[in-house]
Amino acid sequence: MLFIFALCFCNHIPAQNHPRLILTVEGVKKIRAGLGKTPLYDEALEKAKAEVDAEIKTGIQVPVPKDLAGGYTHERHKRNFLILPKAGVLYQVLQDEQYAVYIRDVLMAYARMYPTLGLHPTQRSYATGKVFWQCLNDANWLVYVSQAYDCIYEWLKPEEREILEKQLFRPFADFISVENPRFFNRIHNQSTWGNAAVGMIGLVMEDKELVHRAFYGLEHDNIGADEKDNDGGLIKLPGQDRAGFLAQLDHSFAPDGYYTEGPYYQRYAMYPFILFAKAISHNLPELEIFEYRGQLLKKAVYALLQQTNEQGEFFPFNDAQKGMSYHSRELVAAVDIAYDLCGNDPALLSIARKQGRVLIDGSGFAVASALQAGKAIPFRKKSIELKDGADGSKGGIGILRAATDAGSLCLVMKYADQGMSHGYFDRLSFSLYDERDEVAQDYGAARWVNIDQKDGGGYLPENKTFAKQSIAHNTVVVDEKSQFNGHFEAANAHHSEPYFFLGGRGDVQAASAKEFNAYPGAELHRTMIVLKVEAFELPVVVVVFRVSSEEPHQYDLPYYFQGHLLTAGFEYETELEKLQPLGTGYGYQHLWKEATGKASGPGFSLQWFGRSRFYTLACRAGEADELIFARTGANDPDFNLRRDPAVIIRKKNSTDALFFS
Amino acid sequence: MLFIFALCFCNHIPAQNHPRLILTVEGVKKIRAGLGKTPLYDEALEKAKAEVDAEIKTGIQVPVPKDLAGGYTHERHKRNFLILPKAGVLYQVLQDEQYAVYIRDVLMAYARMYPTLGLHPTQRSYATGKVFWQCLNDANWLVYVSQAYDCIYEWLKPEEREILEKQLFRPFADFISVENPRFFNRIHNQSTWGNAAVGMIGLVMEDKELVHRAFYGLEHDNIGADEKDNDGGLIKLPGQDRAGFLAQLDHSFAPDGYYTEGPYYQRYAMYPFILFAKAISHNLPELEIFEYRGQLLKKAVYALLQQTNEQGEFFPFNDAQKGMSYHSRELVAAVDIAYDLCGNDPALLSIARKQGRVLIDGSGFAVASALQAGKAIPFRKKSIELKDGADGSKGGIGILRAATDAGSLCLVMKYADQGMSHGYFDRLSFSLYDERDEVAQDYGAARWVNIDQKDGGGYLPENKTFAKQSIAHNTVVVDEKSQFNGHFEAANAHHSEPYFFLGGRGDVQAASAKEFNAYPGAELHRTMIVLKVEAFELPVVVVVFRVSSEEPHQYDLPYYFQGHLLTAGFEYETELEKLQPLGTGYGYQHLWKEATGKASGPGFSLQWFGRSRFYTLACRAGEADELIFARTGANDPDFNLRRDPAVIIRKKNSTDALFFS
Repeated sequence: MLFIFALCFCNHIPAQNHPRLILTVEGVKKIRAGLGKTPLYDEALEKAKAEVDAEIKTGIQVPVPKDLAGGYTHERHKRNFLILPKAGVLYQVLQDEQYAVYIRDVLMAYARMYPTLGLHPTQRSYATGKVFWQCLNDANWLVYVSQAYDCIYEWLKPEEREILEKQLFRPFADFISVENPRFFNRIHNQSTWGNAAVGMIGLVMEDKELVHRAFYGLEHDNIGADEKDNDGGLIKLPGQDRAGFLAQLDHSFAPDGYYTEGPYYQRYAMYPFILFAKAISHNLPELEIFEYRGQLLKKAVYALLQQTNEQGEFFPFNDAQKGMSYHSRELVAAVDIAYDLCGNDPALLSIARKQGRVLIDGSGFAVASALQAGKAIPFRKKSIELKDGADGSKGGIGILRAATDAGSLCLVMKYADQGMSHGYFDRLSFSLYDERDEVAQDYGAARWVNIDQKDGGGYLPENKTFAKQSIAHNTVVVDEKSQFNGHFEAANAHHSEPYFFLGGRGDVQAASAKEFNAYPGAELHRTMIVLKVEAFELPVVVVVFRVSSEEPHQYDLPYYFQGHLLTAGFEYETELEKLQPLGTGYGYQHLWKEATGKASGPGFSLQWFGRSRFYTLACRAGEADELIFARTGANDPDFNLRRDPAVIIRKKNSTDALFFS
Repeated sequence: MLFIFALCFCNHIPAQNHPRLILTVEGVKKIRAGLGKTPLYDEALEKAKAEVDAEIKTGIQVPVPKDLAGGYTHERHKRNFLILPKAGVLYQVLQDEQYAVYIRDVLMAYARMYPTLGLHPTQRSYATGKVFWQCLNDANWLVYVSQAYDCIYEWLKPEEREILEKQLFRPFADFISVENPRFFNRIHNQSTWGNAAVGMIGLVMEDKELVHRAFYGLEHDNIGADEKDNDGGLIKLPGQDRAGFLAQLDHSFAPDGYYTEGPYYQRYAMYPFILFAKAISHNLPELEIFEYRGQLLKKAVYALLQQTNEQGEFFPFNDAQKGMSYHSRELVAAVDIAYDLCGNDPALLSIARKQGRVLIDGSGFAVASALQAGKAIPFRKKSIELKDGADGSKGGIGILRAATDAGSLCLVMKYADQGMSHGYFDRLSFSLYDERDEVAQDYGAARWVNIDQKDGGGYLPENKTFAKQSIAHNTVVVDEKSQFNGHFEAANAHHSEPYFFLGGRGDVQAASAKEFNAYPGAELHRTMIVLKVEAFELPVVVVVFRVSSEEPHQYDLPYYFQGHLLTAGFEYETELEKLQPLGTGYGYQHLWKEATGKASGPGFSLQWFGRSRFYTLACRAGEADELIFARTGANDPDFNLRRDPAVIIRKKNSTDALFFS
């Protein structure tokens, strides 16, 4: 899959050869010709202008780095890197020199400071940065700032360029690559930022060596096979022989565009993937980067859009903050660029319209023009199986969608690979949505992104002790222990096995998968069927979960229903005066046991109420089945967890067991 | 305030004298002339037609009464009474006889059944009905159905009218009045329905006696002074010497339109008040009913609209289901009729536009026409004090509103009279909203309206044991007992005292009130100030709550903050392995004690996060102050309560105490 090419862009440099990274000389001409006639673009430019003008008024602030995320110096440097490329576009499109002056002055301030910096004083990361607490954020900075530099490249005096490149850009690029091989040579969303940063500044500076480094990684990195990052993930994939941007494309994505870390991190990585690709397409068009691996980047954008609920929010697989959606700036970039450079699919325009904003580059302009011309058609979300693994052989996820006049339903079942260091022990779990909200939720990450008061938005201890554990998900837990005993290495060595998938638009759809390795000696097999039945206004979900084992075990199957319990079709006893945790480890210590009951007949049903709709869970049950109402929040000293309800079906001392609901 | 008039409408009956109740002959002509030109009205009529046509297709169902609310016969009879007046309007406006036939046939089915009915078999109400489980619903039926009868009155043969009036309407009206004096002669929202029902059918039938009864109540009722209804409310007000519709107007409302039971029940009572008034204005125009008590009914509509948050939801005072808003059908009627018959205030049009629908009568048509003509202007919600009590001398509520560019804030403080049987022991409590949602909530009622599984939507046991109790509200609780020891009679004898109120549009607004009787020997004084300060993006609330007593007591002040706790500026110890209730009675038994701490300095602050905004509560505290994090849900065997957080500031063994935040 590796392709070799000569870095030959220096051979055909036109007379005016900047901007050439994200903007192009031709593109700017087009935009200027359309100004005032393309409302969505004009609005975006107006907004960018207001923001940049306000910053210019505030004055330049380039403080000595000190704080973690959420703190002043962090937020200030972040603000700088977000503002500078906008100022660059404003300079090019409005041809107003004050923006060029502003960029130059900010960059010069960085050029004065950078040589004086040692490592960031926080020293909390496996790859500490200089401007920020981790190399990742330094790479963010360079991805954005290289765009600004490109915009004023020709306006600068040669001696100014020399200062900037010698004191700032080249050492900056070397720092996040050569000096941080564990960061740069990894297959990981963070390293993609590193690769893109080095490549993008390399393209602006016409520095072949940097571009080569970005594409192929460092030749020598001396990383040990067992080295890990802060989250416990391996630095080097087993068998990984290459690094750099192309290796990211080869290793992180499945052939149909699924990203092994899940959609939350795919969104985050999408920005450098698509921006760098766009820059490559401008400078090395003969590489046809958007054709790479059968149009992989385009497929990745579509895969991301498919992995959203009706509100556009991503399924919260693995470490994922809930609520992140295709309205994020990364997806605005991805959708605009995919429209512009991957075939002008008019269905993407309807997503852009929902986003309500466009990039201020040529791609954003192309989208705004097409929308203005009325070219949008609906984007059809469908039932689809997305395979995991570089060759699509490592399990996957199944998305089933069905709609009636009364509403729609979207079910997603997970039987993918571990998802690297951000992966959860949640195989064969599922989430269920209707057109309004979650019906059966996945907890998502125990993390409060951008909230300084909660450890600067980092992962909280309960992420490991609860959110990662199997009992936090809608899947069977054996003997109150998490899958793979909660060990990353064991989990990382295996994936679930797809059994069958039936999508399409028919009245019967299904996803089915098996897991052989999560619990030694036990085989898990879940089949989820979505049916349209005339007797019901909304589609119905049928779940069959079979567990087979030679030894007797206890099996727990939780349903994290979202809403307020109305009735349970069984007798239960509520804890009135004393709540205690449900267990002592593997996440059970974080669940309060609110009530327990026994299934009395051949089955039971449960009704709850959420967002003005009633939901019923009907289950077949054995006489010995225990039913537990639980709620998150036990052993939570700092109130880090939400207080959400679940019902757990418990089968004790069973060899083979069947959960049917 | 009583006014005497002769019931003289028989003297000037025009040639064609029906419809005359809600529709008029003239009004119908106007509507017919405007059909197809008034989109909002056309839409409403179209919708009504679709509904009625579907019912006609389903066929007539008049089952023998059997079920409670939520059950089949209840819901079926309710559906009948909602459909019939719509069919009546369709007959008049579209002049399509099938609607008249349908109404006649349904009414005849009722006329055949009614004489055979004894009391409803449920026998659960202090005033059991015949068609429904309580007289209230029977009265609902008659208020609606009298409108349908009016529409086909002239179309019916005289002998058909005779059957209907002798077998159905007259006995029906007698049953809910003469045979149920405890229901009919009460000052209460339910009895207003009874009065209006009898009066409206009386106007249609031109039955002077019924109209007189509706206006003045029954002369003799033999109700004992201590008789109570199902909710423990007194049937007869102390000193109440009159009953009927005019007495309701005199006793239930304060001069500025505040309704003593609170906005939730005012909304419910508004429909019969305003509909019957409209019918009176058509038939007895010389009474000038809309001028009664200084345009009381108009003021009542405006008072209701002022008692809403930005989403139009009523403040959940007393027994109140949250989420009820001016989008309800009662308020659509109230706004349309107030616009049409109380001076055509264009500000009401903007509310009607938000409601997005209009009545299909002449008032709805007037509103739709005016909206179509572009007459709407914004409705300004303001800071306002609404006094309680028939003469405005029994306390009141203070509403403070302030807005900045970043958002708005609405605070409501309650220092009113008890609010009759639906009243809560929550004096000097408050709720706080921003433009998005609740910031500091009032729990509202423990009730799931329209949810069969939760006791048919009735009040749940936890309404009495928690929601009514003082600790469920943002007010001081002395010695872990509710105000007035939770005794209705004692509470009903006293009201809080307004101290001062400063509204207006300035940067400083305030409400201040005292309570002398809730706790013998203790005086409570709360002042709430809303400030616009340049240093803050949003307005700031300052609370000063002073408690004075000669004997030492324990004082608890809860804040039911809405959102997720981020940080507390004090050390606290969380209950990790065991939750227990905070107390044993007065609602404390329903709160889990999640954590406790001590104020360490001169004050502390608390931050929480809700709906993408951060909120801070900063309090002055004494060294001995205890701080408790609590959550509702203890001793809740049927999961009837929500799980909501609170922080309680506790001052032990204090005589005078000051809470400042």
